[in-house]
Amino acid sequence: MPHLVVLYTPGVDAGCDMTALCRKLADTMLAVRDEAGRQVFPTGGVRVLAYPATHAAVADGSGDHGFVYFNLRIGRGRSAATHKAAGDALAATAREHFAPLLQTRRLGLTLQIDEGQEVYDARFGNLHPLFASKG
Amino acid sequence: MPHLVVLYTPGVDAGCDMTALCRKLADTMLAVRDEAGRQVFPTGGVRVLAYPATHAAVADGSGDHGFVYFNLRIGRGRSAATHKAAGDALAATAREHFAPLLQTRRLGLTLQIDEGQEVYDARFGNLHPLFASKG
Amino acid sequence: MPHLVVLYTPGVDAGCDMTALCRKLADTMLAVRDEAGRQVFPTGGVRVLAYPATHAAVADGSGDHGFVYFNLRIGRGRSAATHKAAGDALAATAREHFAPLLQTRRLGLTLQIDEGQEVYDARFGNLHPLFASKG
Repeated sequence: MPHLVVLYTPGVDAGCDMTALCRKLADTMLAVRDEAGRQVFPTGGVRVLAYPATHAAVADGSGDHGFVYFNLRIGRGRSAATHKAAGDALAATAREHFAPLLQTRRLGLTLQIDEGQEVYDARFGNLHPLFASKG
Repeated sequence: MPHLVVLYTPGVDAGCDMTALCRKLADTMLAVRDEAGRQVFPTGGVRVLAYPATHAAVADGSGDHGFVYFNLRIGRGRSAATHKAAGDALAATAREHFAPLLQTRRLGLTLQIDEGQEVYDARFGNLHPLFASKG
Repeated sequence: MPHLVVLYTPGVDAGCDMTALCRKLADTMLAVRDEAGRQVFPTGGVRVLAYPATHAAVADGSGDHGFVYFNLRIGRGRSAATHKAAGDALAATAREHFAPLLQTRRLGLTLQIDEGQEVYDARFGNLHPLFASKG
């Protein structure tokens, strides 16, 4: 955690560098601060994964409409203000990135943040320790 | 919202046109009506994304068994009757589409509807306005 | 149910046989027993699907860090002890499988179990009956 998964219709990446967007979104997450000015998301926990769909359908099929869905899953217990800060920052980053494409085509963009309600949670890799001193 | 994400084992699409299925599922969602006869899902919000897995394992590995998982995420607050109407309609569409394939191979088919419990929700594309007058 | 979905950064599968991992994880799920010694997950319901991301970003981008996320979705109502048994067993299987790769690179590994809170659930394939007698 936090994991940001981006699902999108085929062809969206033809008009837009999605790898660059992933990096921007990760940087945006790293920059989020809580009310006390502390980094909200630990550096080693920030992950963005983007997946173009292989098959898709949007709306009533009346045009070549695209869609990008951003789903951020975070741990429980953060404040509503932090949720809003994170969501607004990510949406602003995505909006800016897609601005040129939105001039040329119709695109649905939705961003949602979920608090994980997991009944089991384990981390057992070797990435977090590398960033332990960086928050 | 609503988002229908379809995850399936590799090779299922060899026996079945998944792009056509996505369109049928989207049309099914558009046709769902509530108790008062109103369209449940706004046209501009209907999205179906299908993803074949790159790697998979099913059951005990005793045969080339396939699996398709349909997950529909919708907004909160709709009635149980609407949930059932949407689920039954989507399952009927999928069942009909897979009927030929089910004659030739074993396939697990599961459809679940989740109500999103998101703590942040933003839409910032230009697709919804196009359909605003169509519900 | 249960569905185990594995999402990972591009390139992780270059150092690791992910199809073999899926099979090991499915076998691990099949071997989970509850407090009374009964098989927890019905054979015909065990599914593992793995998806390499097409685009990704991890942490602060300071190295070629990888990430693998295991999300198991199960039905409601199982005990905390069963959740822990399933989670610990799956994490042990994954840890062993990734041990060689963890010698050569940084990899974040997270495993979470969610209880589905679906408002609609239908199974309509022909796979479950094949295993009905096997639990």
